Amino acid sequence: MDLGTIIGLILGFGMVLFGIISARGDFSLFISIPSIFIVIGGSFGALLVSNPLSRVLGIMRYVNLAIKVPNYEEERIIAQLVNFSEKARREGLLALEDDLEEVEDEFLRKGIQLVVDGTDPDIIKNILYNELNQIQLRHAVGIKLFDDWGKLAPAFGMIGTLIGLVLMLGNIEDKSAIGSGMSAALITKLYGAILGNLVFTPFRNNLQDKDNDEAMVKEIMIEGILSIQSGDNPRILEEKLLSFLPPSRREAVRQEAAQE
Amino acid sequence: MDLGTIIGLILGFGMVLFGIISARGDFSLFISIPSIFIVIGGSFGALLVSNPLSRVLGIMRYVNLAIKVPNYEEERIIAQLVNFSEKARREGLLALEDDLEEVEDEFLRKGIQLVVDGTDPDIIKNILYNELNQIQLRHAVGIKLFDDWGKLAPAFGMIGTLIGLVLMLGNIEDKSAIGSGMSAALITKLYGAILGNLVFTPFRNNLQDKDNDEAMVKEIMIEGILSIQSGDNPRILEEKLLSFLPPSRREAVRQEAAQE
Amino acid sequence: MDLGTIIGLILGFGMVLFGIISARGDFSLFISIPSIFIVIGGSFGALLVSNPLSRVLGIMRYVNLAIKVPNYEEERIIAQLVNFSEKARREGLLALEDDLEEVEDEFLRKGIQLVVDGTDPDIIKNILYNELNQIQLRHAVGIKLFDDWGKLAPAFGMIGTLIGLVLMLGNIEDKSAIGSGMSAALITKLYGAILGNLVFTPFRNNLQDKDNDEAMVKEIMIEGILSIQSGDNPRILEEKLLSFLPPSRREAVRQEAAQE
Amino acid sequence: MDLGTIIGLILGFGMVLFGIISARGDFSLFISIPSIFIVIGGSFGALLVSNPLSRVLGIMRYVNLAIKVPNYEEERIIAQLVNFSEKARREGLLALEDDLEEVEDEFLRKGIQLVVDGTDPDIIKNILYNELNQIQLRHAVGIKLFDDWGKLAPAFGMIGTLIGLVLMLGNIEDKSAIGSGMSAALITKLYGAILGNLVFTPFRNNLQDKDNDEAMVKEIMIEGILSIQSGDNPRILEEKLLSFLPPSRREAVRQEAAQE
Amino acid sequence: MDLGTIIGLILGFGMVLFGIISARGDFSLFISIPSIFIVIGGSFGALLVSNPLSRVLGIMRYVNLAIKVPNYEEERIIAQLVNFSEKARREGLLALEDDLEEVEDEFLRKGIQLVVDGTDPDIIKNILYNELNQIQLRHAVGIKLFDDWGKLAPAFGMIGTLIGLVLMLGNIEDKSAIGSGMSAALITKLYGAILGNLVFTPFRNNLQDKDNDEAMVKEIMIEGILSIQSGDNPRILEEKLLSFLPPSRREAVRQEAAQE
Repeated sequence: MDLGTIIGLILGFGMVLFGIISARGDFSLFISIPSIFIVIGGSFGALLVSNPLSRVLGIMRYVNLAIKVPNYEEERIIAQLVNFSEKARREGLLALEDDLEEVEDEFLRKGIQLVVDGTDPDIIKNILYNELNQIQLRHAVGIKLFDDWGKLAPAFGMIGTLIGLVLMLGNIEDKSAIGSGMSAALITKLYGAILGNLVFTPFRNNLQDKDNDEAMVKEIMIEGILSIQSGDNPRILEEKLLSFLPPSRREAVRQEAAQE
Repeated sequence: MDLGTIIGLILGFGMVLFGIISARGDFSLFISIPSIFIVIGGSFGALLVSNPLSRVLGIMRYVNLAIKVPNYEEERIIAQLVNFSEKARREGLLALEDDLEEVEDEFLRKGIQLVVDGTDPDIIKNILYNELNQIQLRHAVGIKLFDDWGKLAPAFGMIGTLIGLVLMLGNIEDKSAIGSGMSAALITKLYGAILGNLVFTPFRNNLQDKDNDEAMVKEIMIEGILSIQSGDNPRILEEKLLSFLPPSRREAVRQEAAQE
Repeated sequence: MDLGTIIGLILGFGMVLFGIISARGDFSLFISIPSIFIVIGGSFGALLVSNPLSRVLGIMRYVNLAIKVPNYEEERIIAQLVNFSEKARREGLLALEDDLEEVEDEFLRKGIQLVVDGTDPDIIKNILYNELNQIQLRHAVGIKLFDDWGKLAPAFGMIGTLIGLVLMLGNIEDKSAIGSGMSAALITKLYGAILGNLVFTPFRNNLQDKDNDEAMVKEIMIEGILSIQSGDNPRILEEKLLSFLPPSRREAVRQEAAQE
Repeated sequence: MDLGTIIGLILGFGMVLFGIISARGDFSLFISIPSIFIVIGGSFGALLVSNPLSRVLGIMRYVNLAIKVPNYEEERIIAQLVNFSEKARREGLLALEDDLEEVEDEFLRKGIQLVVDGTDPDIIKNILYNELNQIQLRHAVGIKLFDDWGKLAPAFGMIGTLIGLVLMLGNIEDKSAIGSGMSAALITKLYGAILGNLVFTPFRNNLQDKDNDEAMVKEIMIEGILSIQSGDNPRILEEKLLSFLPPSRREAVRQEAAQE
Repeated sequence: MDLGTIIGLILGFGMVLFGIISARGDFSLFISIPSIFIVIGGSFGALLVSNPLSRVLGIMRYVNLAIKVPNYEEERIIAQLVNFSEKARREGLLALEDDLEEVEDEFLRKGIQLVVDGTDPDIIKNILYNELNQIQLRHAVGIKLFDDWGKLAPAFGMIGTLIGLVLMLGNIEDKSAIGSGMSAALITKLYGAILGNLVFTPFRNNLQDKDNDEAMVKEIMIEGILSIQSGDNPRILEEKLLSFLPPSRREAVRQEAAQE
C-alpha cells in the first residue's frame, strides 16, 4: 500500500473536517443527497460519454495502481544487466539463456530472449520501444480518465449550484426554501471542488508519476539489452546505466556489481 | 450503437433531473425559450464564423461517429498480416494478389496492392503515412468543431446571464421582472454549462479517443505491410505487431495464427 | 463572400437580440457609449502595445481574408501536376517551360520554373518549404492579432464592470446612480463577452483554418514538383497526391487526369 | 520611439478615463494608496521571488527594448549578402575581408570573419545557431519577466479585494467603513486588471514579437553566410533569401542587387 | 543566500501588511486557525496523494535550492576548458589526467575522466547527455511539487470559502455567526491566494530558472569536453563556448584565457 496516498487522503479530508469543527460548524449541514447525485452521478455520466464503456468500468484498476507502491529496484536491475554483460562477453550471448528464468520482469526477459535468438538489433529496438510506447499509451488512458473526471466534478458542482439558485429564486416568496436552495447550491460546488482537488486530479498526478517512473526503468532495460547485444564493455555499460540514477544511489550498485 | 455514449447521456441528464426532483424542485422553472435561443443559437452562430459552412453542416456525421461502436479487431488484422507474411515467403509477393478481395479494410487493401505492384518501399511508406496523416487531419476537423462548441456554449450561457441581469436592473422598480430576469440569467448559464460539460466537450473527447484508436490500427497495418514487403520472418512480424496490444490480448492472436 | 461567416455573424447577433426581445426586454437598456469606449477603445489600445503599429493598421486585410471564400481546387491542381509529370517523362523537364504561363498559382509556377532551370532538388525543397514557412508566419501575425483581441475584449469588459461598480459604490446615497452604474458595469462586460466570443475569437479560428487549408495545398504542390523533378511514375505521383484528399473526392481527379 | 506602443498606452488609458468621465464619474474615487502598495508592491515582491535579483533590476532594459523601433532592413541585408556572394565567386572568399568593416551588424560580421578564416562549415553553423539560440534565451528572460508580472498583478488585485472585503465585514456595524472597504476592494482589482491587460501582458507580447523578428533576420544571415561559403550561385542565394520576405517586398531587393 | 528571494518575500508580505495598515485595518481580523488547517493542511494532503511520500518529505531540499545563490562562474569554466584544450593539443589527451584533481565540478571531472580513458565519443556524449537529462528530471520533481502546491492552495482557499458560506447560511437566524462565517470564508480564500501567488508559484518559477541555468552550464561542459576529445582548435573551442554568454561577459574570458 502506498502510504503517501492513504495518509494524503486522510490528512486532506481530516483537515477539512477539522476546519469545519474548529469553526464550531454543524456537520449535518454538509450532507446533501441531491448534491451527491448531481456531482458524482452527473460527472460520471459525462465521463461515460467521453470515454469507451470498457475503460470507465476498468477504472478501479487505475485506483489500485495509484494505491500500490511500485517496487522498481533500479539498483538490482542495473547490477543484473552488468552481470549479464560480463557473462555474455565471457561465454557468448547464448549463455544468457540459462539465466532467463531468474529474470522476473517480463519486459526484460523478452528483450534478453530476443538477444539470445540472434534477432537484428534494429528490430529489437523497434519491438521494445514500441512495447514501452504502448504501455505508456495504456497508462495514458487511465491518466486521461482521472484528468477528465477532475475537470468534470467541479463543473457539475457549478451546475448543481446554478440549479439550487434557480430553485431558490423561483420560490422567493417561500422563505423556507431559501436555506435549502442555497445550501444545495453551495454544497454541490463544495463537493465538486473537494472531489476534483483532493481525489481525482491528485490521482491523475499520481498515475502520471508512476508512468514516468516505469518508463525510466524500461529505458534502463532497453539501453542495457542493446549494450549487451553490441558487446559493450561492462564497465561502460555500468557507467551508462548509473547515469539514470541520482549520484547518492550509485554507490550501492557499484558494490553489488563488484561482489557478484 | 456505442452503449457507453447513450448510457452516459441518459445517466448524466437523469442525475441532474433527479437532483432537481429530490430537492423538491419545480421542473417548469428550468424551461426558458429565450435561453435556448441565446445559448444554442448564439453559440451556433459563433461556430459558423469559426468554421467553414460545409464542415458545420456536416456535424451530424461526427455525432454518428461518436455514437457508433468501432469494430477494429486488431487481433484479426494481426493474424491476417502474419498469414500474408507466411504466404509471401512461401509463394512470393505476387501471390498476395489472390487474397486482395478478402481484405475488407480499404487502407490495408491499398497497401497490399502497392506491395504486389512492386512499388518502392519508401514510396509506399510515404503514401500510407500521408493517408493516415490526412485521415487524422479530417478527424481533427470534427474534434475542433465540438471543442469550439464546448467552449462557446458556456460563454453564451454567461452572455445570457448578463442580458438577464441588465434587464432585471433596468426594471428594478417592476418587482415582477426580478424573478423572470434572474431566472433567464441563471438558466441560460445552466444550459451553457450542461451543454458544454455533458454534451459537446465529452463528444470531443470521444472523437479524440476514436481517432487515437484508428491511428493505432492503421499503424499496425503500415508496420505489417512494410515488413511483408521487406520479407521479414513471420515470427518476428508477429512479435512486432503484438507489441501494439496489451499482453492480455496477445494469446488469442498466437492461437489464431497457429491454427490457420 | 464566405457565406458561413456572414450567416454566423447574423445568426449569432440575431439570436442574442431575439433572446432579449422574447424576454420582453427594453432594447435601449443595452446601449452604453462609455462601455463602447472602454471595451473597444481600451482593448484596441492594448492591442497597439502588444503588436507593431503597421500590423494593427493592416487588420482589415485579415478581416477580408476571413470573409473571402478561398478557392483552392485541389483536384485541378493534382490533375495538372499529373499531366506535367506525364509530359516531363515524354518530352523532358525543359518541355514544361511552355506550360508555365497557364499556371495561375505563383507558388506552383515558381517551383516549376526552378525545376526547368535545373536547380538542385535540395535547394528547391529548401526554397519552397521556406516560402511556405514564411507564408504561415505571416498568417500567424493575423491570427495572433485576433487571438490577442479576443482575450483583451473580455478583460476590458471586466475593467469596465469594476469602474461601474466603484462609481456606484462611491455614490451609494445617490440612489439614481445605482441603476446607471450597475448598467454600465454589466453592459461593458456583456460587450466584451460578445465581441470576444462572437467576433474576435471566431475570426481567429477562421483564419487558422484557412491557414491550414492553404498549407495543405502548398504541400501538395511541393510534393508534386519534387516528384516531377525526380522523374517518378505519373501513376505513383497521382496516388501520392490523392492521399491528401478524402476518398470521396478522389474519383473526380482520376477521371480528369484520364481524360486529358 | 515605437509610436504604436506610446499611442497604445495613451489610447488605452485615455479610453478608460474617457469612459469614467462620460459616465459622469468622480475621478478621485479611483485613487487609492493602499491598493497601489498591494498591487504594485506585492506583485513586485512575488516577481523577486520568481526571478533572480539581477534580472528584475534589469527590467528597464526590456522596457526600453519594447519602446524602441527596431530597424532591421532585411532588404539591405539580403542585397549585401548577394553582393558578397558575387564577389566571393569572382575573387575568392578571402576577398571578403576588405568588406568586413562596412558590415554594421556584429553577428553578420562574425559569421563572415569565420568564413574568411576558413573555418569548417559545420562549426560555423554550430557557432552561429548557438549564438542565435542564446540571444533568444536572453530575450526569453525579459519575456518571462513581463509574463510573470502580467499574471501576478491581477492576482494581487484579487488579494487586495479580499483584504478590503474582510475589513468591511469585520467592521460591519461601522457603516462608514463599508464604502472605504469596498472601494479599496474593487479598486485594487481594477488596478491589477489594468496593469495586467494594458501594460505587462502587452509588453510581453511586444517583446515576443521583436524576438521573432530578430530571429528571422539572424536566420537570413546564417543562411546567407553558409551559402556564400559553399559557393552557391548568387541568383540561387538571392532566391533563397527572398523567400523570407513577403512577395510585396521582394522587388526592391532585386533592383538594389541589380544596380550595385 | 539568494538576496532576491528573501527581499521578495519580505517586500511582498510587507506590502500586503502595509496595505492593510494604511487602510486602517484591524490586523487581528486576518488571523483564522480553521483557515490555516483547511488551506495548508488540506492542500498538503492533496499534495501527498499527488506525489510519492519520499518526494514530499524532501521538499525542504527544494526550498533550500531556491534560497541558495548558485555560483556557476561560466567564465571560469570556459577558460578552464580552453586551457585543457591547449594542453591536450600540446601534450596529448592523457596529460589531462594530472589536472583532474583541480576540477571541482563532478560532472566536468567525470567527462574529462572518460576522455582520458579513451572512451568512444558517442558513448561519452550518450552518458553525459543522459546524466544532464536525469538531473533535469530530478529537478522537474521539485518544480512539479511547487507547481502542484501553487494550484492546490488557491483551490483549498475556495473550498474553505464554500465551507464558511454554508456554515453562515445554515445559521442565518444567528446573526453573530454571519461575521465569523464570512470571515472564515474570505480569509481562507485570501490565505490560498497569498500562498499560491507569493510563495509556491514563485518558488516554482525560481526552481525552473535555476534548472535552466544549470542546464546551460552543463551544456557548455559537454560541448567543451567533446571538442577537446576531437582535437578542435582551442581558438574555435573558445569561440564556440563564448557564444553561450552574452557579448558583455565575453571579454573577461578572452583575457583570462590569454593570461594563463
